[in-house]
Amino acid sequence: MRPSRRAPDELRAVSLERSVVKYAEGSCFVKFGDTHVLVTATLEERLPPWLKGQGRGWVTAEYGMLPRATSERTRREASAGKQGGRTIEIQRLIGRSLRTIVDLAALGERQITIDCDVIQADGGTRTASITGAWVALHDCLQWMKARNMLRGEVLRDQVAAISCGVYKTTPVLDLDYAEDSEAETDANFVMTGSGGIIEIQGTAEKTPFTEEQLLDMLKLARKGVGKLVDLQKMAVT
Amino acid sequence: MRPSRRAPDELRAVSLERSVVKYAEGSCFVKFGDTHVLVTATLEERLPPWLKGQGRGWVTAEYGMLPRATSERTRREASAGKQGGRTIEIQRLIGRSLRTIVDLAALGERQITIDCDVIQADGGTRTASITGAWVALHDCLQWMKARNMLRGEVLRDQVAAISCGVYKTTPVLDLDYAEDSEAETDANFVMTGSGGIIEIQGTAEKTPFTEEQLLDMLKLARKGVGKLVDLQKMAVT
Amino acid sequence: MRPSRRAPDELRAVSLERSVVKYAEGSCFVKFGDTHVLVTATLEERLPPWLKGQGRGWVTAEYGMLPRATSERTRREASAGKQGGRTIEIQRLIGRSLRTIVDLAALGERQITIDCDVIQADGGTRTASITGAWVALHDCLQWMKARNMLRGEVLRDQVAAISCGVYKTTPVLDLDYAEDSEAETDANFVMTGSGGIIEIQGTAEKTPFTEEQLLDMLKLARKGVGKLVDLQKMAVT
Amino acid sequence: MRPSRRAPDELRAVSLERSVVKYAEGSCFVKFGDTHVLVTATLEERLPPWLKGQGRGWVTAEYGMLPRATSERTRREASAGKQGGRTIEIQRLIGRSLRTIVDLAALGERQITIDCDVIQADGGTRTASITGAWVALHDCLQWMKARNMLRGEVLRDQVAAISCGVYKTTPVLDLDYAEDSEAETDANFVMTGSGGIIEIQGTAEKTPFTEEQLLDMLKLARKGVGKLVDLQKMAVT
Amino acid sequence: MRPSRRAPDELRAVSLERSVVKYAEGSCFVKFGDTHVLVTATLEERLPPWLKGQGRGWVTAEYGMLPRATSERTRREASAGKQGGRTIEIQRLIGRSLRTIVDLAALGERQITIDCDVIQADGGTRTASITGAWVALHDCLQWMKARNMLRGEVLRDQVAAISCGVYKTTPVLDLDYAEDSEAETDANFVMTGSGGIIEIQGTAEKTPFTEEQLLDMLKLARKGVGKLVDLQKMAVT
Amino acid sequence: MRPSRRAPDELRAVSLERSVVKYAEGSCFVKFGDTHVLVTATLEERLPPWLKGQGRGWVTAEYGMLPRATSERTRREASAGKQGGRTIEIQRLIGRSLRTIVDLAALGERQITIDCDVIQADGGTRTASITGAWVALHDCLQWMKARNMLRGEVLRDQVAAISCGVYKTTPVLDLDYAEDSEAETDANFVMTGSGGIIEIQGTAEKTPFTEEQLLDMLKLARKGVGKLVDLQKMAVT
Repeated sequence: MRPSRRAPDELRAVSLERSVVKYAEGSCFVKFGDTHVLVTATLEERLPPWLKGQGRGWVTAEYGMLPRATSERTRREASAGKQGGRTIEIQRLIGRSLRTIVDLAALGERQITIDCDVIQADGGTRTASITGAWVALHDCLQWMKARNMLRGEVLRDQVAAISCGVYKTTPVLDLDYAEDSEAETDANFVMTGSGGIIEIQGTAEKTPFTEEQLLDMLKLARKGVGKLVDLQKMAVT
Repeated sequence: MRPSRRAPDELRAVSLERSVVKYAEGSCFVKFGDTHVLVTATLEERLPPWLKGQGRGWVTAEYGMLPRATSERTRREASAGKQGGRTIEIQRLIGRSLRTIVDLAALGERQITIDCDVIQADGGTRTASITGAWVALHDCLQWMKARNMLRGEVLRDQVAAISCGVYKTTPVLDLDYAEDSEAETDANFVMTGSGGIIEIQGTAEKTPFTEEQLLDMLKLARKGVGKLVDLQKMAVT
Repeated sequence: MRPSRRAPDELRAVSLERSVVKYAEGSCFVKFGDTHVLVTATLEERLPPWLKGQGRGWVTAEYGMLPRATSERTRREASAGKQGGRTIEIQRLIGRSLRTIVDLAALGERQITIDCDVIQADGGTRTASITGAWVALHDCLQWMKARNMLRGEVLRDQVAAISCGVYKTTPVLDLDYAEDSEAETDANFVMTGSGGIIEIQGTAEKTPFTEEQLLDMLKLARKGVGKLVDLQKMAVT
Repeated sequence: MRPSRRAPDELRAVSLERSVVKYAEGSCFVKFGDTHVLVTATLEERLPPWLKGQGRGWVTAEYGMLPRATSERTRREASAGKQGGRTIEIQRLIGRSLRTIVDLAALGERQITIDCDVIQADGGTRTASITGAWVALHDCLQWMKARNMLRGEVLRDQVAAISCGVYKTTPVLDLDYAEDSEAETDANFVMTGSGGIIEIQGTAEKTPFTEEQLLDMLKLARKGVGKLVDLQKMAVT
Repeated sequence: MRPSRRAPDELRAVSLERSVVKYAEGSCFVKFGDTHVLVTATLEERLPPWLKGQGRGWVTAEYGMLPRATSERTRREASAGKQGGRTIEIQRLIGRSLRTIVDLAALGERQITIDCDVIQADGGTRTASITGAWVALHDCLQWMKARNMLRGEVLRDQVAAISCGVYKTTPVLDLDYAEDSEAETDANFVMTGSGGIIEIQGTAEKTPFTEEQLLDMLKLARKGVGKLVDLQKMAVT
Repeated sequence: MRPSRRAPDELRAVSLERSVVKYAEGSCFVKFGDTHVLVTATLEERLPPWLKGQGRGWVTAEYGMLPRATSERTRREASAGKQGGRTIEIQRLIGRSLRTIVDLAALGERQITIDCDVIQADGGTRTASITGAWVALHDCLQWMKARNMLRGEVLRDQVAAISCGVYKTTPVLDLDYAEDSEAETDANFVMTGSGGIIEIQGTAEKTPFTEEQLLDMLKLARKGVGKLVDLQKMAVT
């Protein structure tokens, strides 16, 4: 039995609320149960120096957690003077995941920055961020289309992400913090709307896992991402 | 005529929502019109080194803005590697303001950290932060009382803050961003529930101001803080 | 009775010595009693990036304290790797105060940097800095005039600053360290030669202050700044 | 045809040279073709503060690249003032991978730090590092055994790592730089001597990959790690 | 002919003024011509962690330049966020030089910090700093003796420093900035009152120098330091 | 008797191995006994901003130590967030030493960066670095000549370095760590192939040294550098 009494293949309640802040070109407040992330997409007419003059744009991401998003207060990274290793890993993952489904040439020489700020954390902040980021990115691109800024279709597909784990020997979907801190194995899957795999990050926390467990988790992930992709579609229509 | 069509002595719509996050001992989502700040109060059984063994506690504050709280995206301070001068000024002000109405000896050897994170900024983020911080602090202390952690009354008074300015020669209350960027003079007033002044920060943006203008602004501030103090009372009962 | 035996409205001995260093375009060694600050004004034919091409110049300030300017040695900020919050607050105040009385268009596309370095600190280092900075700035502009670098009058007024406080219930002028560490309330006033208020920063250290106390302090400040402005005039003629 | 003319399931020439530096308790100079990494294991009788007094030890890793390990000179991180995101990701991965096969209680309250410094980089520096790190760690533990410092067996298994990728639609083993920069998909596999999976990091560089491709890569990885584990065994006997 | 019209073996006008600041246990305002350095000595009852419990004290030094000590304004190191390489080199030299003539065991478990802050720079700031530092250190030790804090004699000798150079083929003593920027060779000599050499730092700026030139410079240095040592003696008696 | 049983004027076994890494334009693995340094020379078609447009090139150096190059593990500077004072001193010395024998105008508007990374440290890492750097620089210039990138001869001379010291009252050549930590005096000599002195850094560790000792050390150094210069010549032919 999972601590949340969910079935092994059951997502937490997911919601994707659009246009939640006044200024951003796109935004989404995403909830995976008690994990709440505010995602904004910012369009800027500038590029990182190493990309200038190549006829392509860029999508990048930054990630942060409010200090009291967590059960114990976490030190504010701005005050500590640097972003921690976990933050850097996550924001790199979000950026990579989005770039895989974006046609950077069609975007033109501009940068879209995705900011994912965790208001409350209960496990799965990176998967919620990626799932919400697609909605914010979509709306940012809609904003550009409405202003005739785009030559063609920038978004090639949807992208969403979910975690799976092996909890007390059972593969389960969408770990919350109570499960995550106990799980033997923890894997994050980033997948497209059409079922392709963009990223797998599977980690054995205590004991190594088997190919069979990996495939069980992949199957769960496919199911979970399928539902997230449907929710994204509903959110943007 | 103010851009917002408010009367000179009219506050923006103010709301103070309590208990908005799951983990913090106290929290408040404060809105002054389109300025939205999430404030949390965190209790920790530790003290800054220079305060240890003196039988007193400490209240401190940190302030941050989400990158896209503003019309143009602001660089994330965690990524820049340091907090800017404005951030440091504001968080020092919030901490000082709260400490003036707190009995640090009654708090005991503990620290309460107030985190003020601006979700959306339209002027007056520091005054909204202070006003909301009192509510979060109050609830944190209630949480401690419920656990018999306090010997006596820690909160000696209420504290709230409001800005005033001289906009096109007229003193006005509670500047929004459109006014703030145009105002000749801008002053922030931090006052107690009983009408005492805790802090005045008045700055002439373009031309010096007069004693008369200062007194006009003080009068407006007194009125504004009076209303904020009433709203705080309603919020916590 | 004040620890220094001064009358409540009595300044410390103030001196403003010009041209104290060899290289700077303007300089002033300012003493408010035992508070000694070396102020230099540096002209540079460059501007911060965000100001380029607008036909206006800039005046900015930096502030520092020698490590043993204080009773206990203070850690060197260059060695600590960053400027503290107090330093940043003060240098922003000095810069703002000077810009209010400068015609930045008449200055042309150049920057004047005011460096205020505290050689010895006995309270009131920011007010001494501002008062001396006006002299250094004046002399820097004289240097430019002598070289026909200016189109019109850059200085629109004088500016000086003084602190006031409520010490054992009595409002007093120009706090020294012994008073400052005991005062219930502490306020810094920056005012022009013509009596306008540029900045008020009033802080209740222990108990809130009243409007009456604020007005008493403002009255004292007006008297003190009046004398400082006279001393500035004498210094530069 | 692979640029290196290797068969799809062929590793580069691998060598694991032990005891290559004078001071370290364990060391290994590992070569995967032109990728050369110097790995040292340092025993220290201290622990990170958060681990003290729990009767367990710690294994951690740091990773660096000499500036001219690469085709173009890379900026020295010590001079840049911080470790980049890629460095942090890799050193966290190395540390996690080793801890999974270590009995931290049997280690006792001590820390072993693995330093992986890339002398020359031609793809696969993280997999070479992990593979060499096991040898250095093994020798460090031998050093401790020889001094009767250990109660029981600390090493529970071997660990090695290899990359796989999809290069021009064919799954291939052990990517070198020429392949890595062209590959559609790139995955790193960390596995134990007994065949368990410790970590999978699979990333679609251009187009998403399929479950079938993942399984093909896993099969290759299993073969490659099998050979690496044999080489480790030979190296330490 | 030297730009300053001095004879090759002629020092600039040197003055050593004691007790120039209010708080420091020892202080000296040292002038070598237009090079002016304020040196303070601070006694603290603490030690660097690595020195605790060994029955010995420590003498260390920090060095800084006011931004406009120089002809062009130099960026403030506190604002740049770190001390430059030149600063670090100089303060290490000052510390080493003083420690060589101090009996650290006789000092007891305390630290004396020498702060050398350059008010005006015209070449030779490090040699002026060392020469003045001895006076400040001497007075700090006198302060301690007067309070019966010392068991025996801490100062074993005097120490002073001077630069020499080869200017237009002639070896000259005590380079000022005009000479220093033109000199072919530049060497700093730190020597004791009894004629021992503590440190030589000789650098060929353009062309290598010869043993003969080195000996010529050493001879000049010996003469110069002899005079400085006499001036120190006069200063402290 | 020296700990290493060497004669007072005997160098350790020195080797200079060229072309040790794949990518660098020039490289040298230099050994002075158990001190092993990997030196690379990197050519870049860019200059520091302050040197642009002057028709001259630049040679600079960076220095680092692998964490376990030493008997006790040294903290990684990239992880500490800055280069220590010793590192900065050494890399400045290496850069200066090389520039003295380079015709920067003949180099053209390009930069050569010398990276000296200490793999194993047993005293004399800076002298080994300089000696090996000349070989790497030489080879980098050969690489340029082979591509017709140079107008004339860039290298004006050879440069090599050696340490001397006074160990138990005897002047000795090429201190290893065991001697260095015991020596009364320690001096580094950087000299040209033709016998000119580029830099002398002599430091009395415990007691001042005499002119006679300096001359003894200089004589030893001249002999040692003579041998190193011969070894360099053999290495590059």
